[in-house]
Amino acid sequence: MTDNRALADTVKVLAFDVFGTVVDWHGSIVREMRERYPQVDGDAFARAWRAGYAPAMARVMSGEQGWTLLDTLHRQILEEILGRFGLAHLDEAQRRHLNRVWHRLDGWPDSAPALTRLKRRFTICTLSNGNIGLLTDMARHAGLPWDCVLSAEVFRAYKPDAATYTGVARVFDIEPAEVMMVAAHANDLAAARQHGLRTAFIERPLEFGAGHPKDVSPQAGNDLHCRDLLDLAGQLGA
Amino acid sequence: MTDNRALADTVKVLAFDVFGTVVDWHGSIVREMRERYPQVDGDAFARAWRAGYAPAMARVMSGEQGWTLLDTLHRQILEEILGRFGLAHLDEAQRRHLNRVWHRLDGWPDSAPALTRLKRRFTICTLSNGNIGLLTDMARHAGLPWDCVLSAEVFRAYKPDAATYTGVARVFDIEPAEVMMVAAHANDLAAARQHGLRTAFIERPLEFGAGHPKDVSPQAGNDLHCRDLLDLAGQLGA
Repeated sequence: MTDNRALADTVKVLAFDVFGTVVDWHGSIVREMRERYPQVDGDAFARAWRAGYAPAMARVMSGEQGWTLLDTLHRQILEEILGRFGLAHLDEAQRRHLNRVWHRLDGWPDSAPALTRLKRRFTICTLSNGNIGLLTDMARHAGLPWDCVLSAEVFRAYKPDAATYTGVARVFDIEPAEVMMVAAHANDLAAARQHGLRTAFIERPLEFGAGHPKDVSPQAGNDLHCRDLLDLAGQLGA
Repeated sequence: MTDNRALADTVKVLAFDVFGTVVDWHGSIVREMRERYPQVDGDAFARAWRAGYAPAMARVMSGEQGWTLLDTLHRQILEEILGRFGLAHLDEAQRRHLNRVWHRLDGWPDSAPALTRLKRRFTICTLSNGNIGLLTDMARHAGLPWDCVLSAEVFRAYKPDAATYTGVARVFDIEPAEVMMVAAHANDLAAARQHGLRTAFIERPLEFGAGHPKDVSPQAGNDLHCRDLLDLAGQLGA
């Protein structure tokens, strides 16, 4: 605790990655599929949908596809995988509703109570590739008390583009070192660090489901390594 | 009440003007001046500062000045008026602190409780010409529980530009008629209406101070005319 006091006094804004770090996208999609389409392998479906995510954003950031919100990218990927999972018969209303499952993701059990604690001491915002409407609906659904929803949509760039990380410092008129990026993904944190932000790694070993545990061993370079967001609050004295 | 049920069922997002509508900029600046610079006529100072607001934004929207955040416009106006109020001796740190008084504005007494009620039923967001950092700091200071901070900074246009009003509907992927603009200013509401939004007028007769009461008589065209935000909550059944 003593070790982190200087860090906690320096940091003013905590910027959170959302998918996987704050909300359980895999478990939420599995539950939705079990209720609506129990014939589908929800675990494989959730992972196939998410697997299209990085390539879709790469197409936008390379210029191959013009600026596109994540809701639209999710829908494009959904169209590609529906047939593979025996869901080609879904009508437009069903596809639209299913696509919005990303607006209805549940938080990890520690997320809402930890954010409520952290908010008393720090400004807490999202820094997600989700669009503003998606993140706002999700916050209402999962009870996430963000001070402010920052998104790729605000910066018109997807992480790990520099504009997103430096954008947080610019929005709050502070130094990059006064922003801490909080994420369950090493590449997100590495990019944040490269642009001068402090970083906190959150384990989330079951982000991809109980059948696909992640390596969550500590990696060099992060200011903090945390079991979950309550552990982050504890380490920051919040 | 019965009359407004259909309206309350149609509207999904309430977009709030902030300065004057949700927070008392005049009273807050008068209080700050009384504490720090009691020799200054706080009422005249607050009104002079605010008087520079519309012309500054007009310079940006005409292209005479490039895209500029409100914090910077406030600082430019402050530089213009400091001498007139005997404050030319302020150093950089003092000027910077004074300029951030706009981040520390107090809500009207009804604002926080009314927003808390309205949030249970509607998505509540700002639609303000203030920048994101300013609005976020203000929300923390005044306890305003926004679901999402939308700002001229997101749309890179100042109200009453169409991009701001239609932008709210676009962000939430809904029809303009499902957004209600809430403001204490007829021109803001008239522009919102022109772009298809529903409108609620909030009286705030003392926005410019007790010595300068505003005409708050009902005007044709607004869906609702409200004494304050608790009255809005009541009329919307929230």
